[in-house]
Amino acid sequence: MTGKRGGPDPTSSAIRLIGVEGVPEIRDGDDVASAVFAAQRRMGVPSEDGDIYVVAQKIVSKSEGMRVKLDSFTPSAFSSQLAAHIRKDPREVEVILRESRSIIRARLGILITETRHGLVCANAGVDRSNLPGVGEALLLPRDPDRSAARIRKGIEKLSGRAHAVIISDTFGRPWREGQVDFAIGVSGISCFRDYRRTDDAYGREMKATNIAQVDELAAAAELIMGKARSIPAVLVKGYTFSVGHGSKRLMRRIARDLFR
Amino acid sequence: MTGKRGGPDPTSSAIRLIGVEGVPEIRDGDDVASAVFAAQRRMGVPSEDGDIYVVAQKIVSKSEGMRVKLDSFTPSAFSSQLAAHIRKDPREVEVILRESRSIIRARLGILITETRHGLVCANAGVDRSNLPGVGEALLLPRDPDRSAARIRKGIEKLSGRAHAVIISDTFGRPWREGQVDFAIGVSGISCFRDYRRTDDAYGREMKATNIAQVDELAAAAELIMGKARSIPAVLVKGYTFSVGHGSKRLMRRIARDLFR
Repeated sequence: MTGKRGGPDPTSSAIRLIGVEGVPEIRDGDDVASAVFAAQRRMGVPSEDGDIYVVAQKIVSKSEGMRVKLDSFTPSAFSSQLAAHIRKDPREVEVILRESRSIIRARLGILITETRHGLVCANAGVDRSNLPGVGEALLLPRDPDRSAARIRKGIEKLSGRAHAVIISDTFGRPWREGQVDFAIGVSGISCFRDYRRTDDAYGREMKATNIAQVDELAAAAELIMGKARSIPAVLVKGYTFSVGHGSKRLMRRIARDLFR
Repeated sequence: MTGKRGGPDPTSSAIRLIGVEGVPEIRDGDDVASAVFAAQRRMGVPSEDGDIYVVAQKIVSKSEGMRVKLDSFTPSAFSSQLAAHIRKDPREVEVILRESRSIIRARLGILITETRHGLVCANAGVDRSNLPGVGEALLLPRDPDRSAARIRKGIEKLSGRAHAVIISDTFGRPWREGQVDFAIGVSGISCFRDYRRTDDAYGREMKATNIAQVDELAAAAELIMGKARSIPAVLVKGYTFSVGHGSKRLMRRIARDLFR
């Protein structure tokens, strides 16, 4: 059984990732939980306790009205200067800085900031692709953990089962080329599988291993979502986990961070 | 069909991850391909074209005799000084530096270096957990891409099918707490799903998206491997990909890196 009472060690030896196909274009005010659950039901995929839904940030943001028109932002003097320096659209820089707490790096075409949520990522997560309108941008949800909780409760109400929801977004990484998906909102699953107080296979305490399981689940789901396809949600079956809520513990405090 | 001729966009809408159980303890000189394939056969899991094997670095290193005794390393003056400064075992620091090209960060208990292979990671990938002997450490394979190619060819010979092999290891990340698995050796699959010359769902060119699919596959497989269990290999079925070889393109060149 796909239980939710697992210790740090998974008992899962087989996991299925199922793309939820046929979710319609999501618009401001749409209910993501209903849209995903209806599509899943049309596919004939049953709901079970412990199913994890990984949902793309993009549809969550769209449902929460986070699409903005760049023309409605007047760049500050600082944004204009920075935009000229790194050769970006000054309106886009203005939006990014309004979504940010601090600038981590600014170089030609690249702006890495810490968002209001505490995420460190390119362009504060502001996205200009996969939007029907030209001159538009999509911001991250205001509170991705709250979005995840709302979607989880919505699906649970429809399915009558206990689930977890992870909202995923695409991240670049220092030192490594290419991007992967990680978690930005979490509800119903602990961020980590923590081995720090357990023994290794030879009975010695493991010191540093604290697996960011929600990031691995987000990465796994991206394999199905792709980028240009219409699969904005992936159902993960067969993974055992402990219940937890919120993504804040994923964000490293500055005092513990060697790279800012 | 799980083909290998996919374009950048995956056609996979369902993926199965199957832990290969019953792989015996791997020792110096053992053949990883045979051990994994024999265990898979005992489980009754069939081989298909396009199956991806994610294999834990640990068993690859063990099979290649990369276990070392710390006592056989005499710390240099530099290693001793650095070890005192960051409060690590001087013999361990000596081993780590011998495996490294450069030091990225050194702080209390933490040593992040660039390995001889070009990987940036903690302790140059030198691992002291999950080893039967006290005072031992396990180094990364000399050439993880070559190891991946050898294991792939070995399994292909046994199965008569075309496969991909990814060797995975556990990485910490700047800005985010917890660790995830990424790829350190790759054979038979392209590192990336590259969208940079394709259009988004609205017909506009996507600029930056170049998904590190082998890292996502490694992360997904870790969900099954766990850390203290004896599942050192995971079979991924149903993922469509382009063929490629080697992991070097995953390593960001210093000139393109904002964080060293």
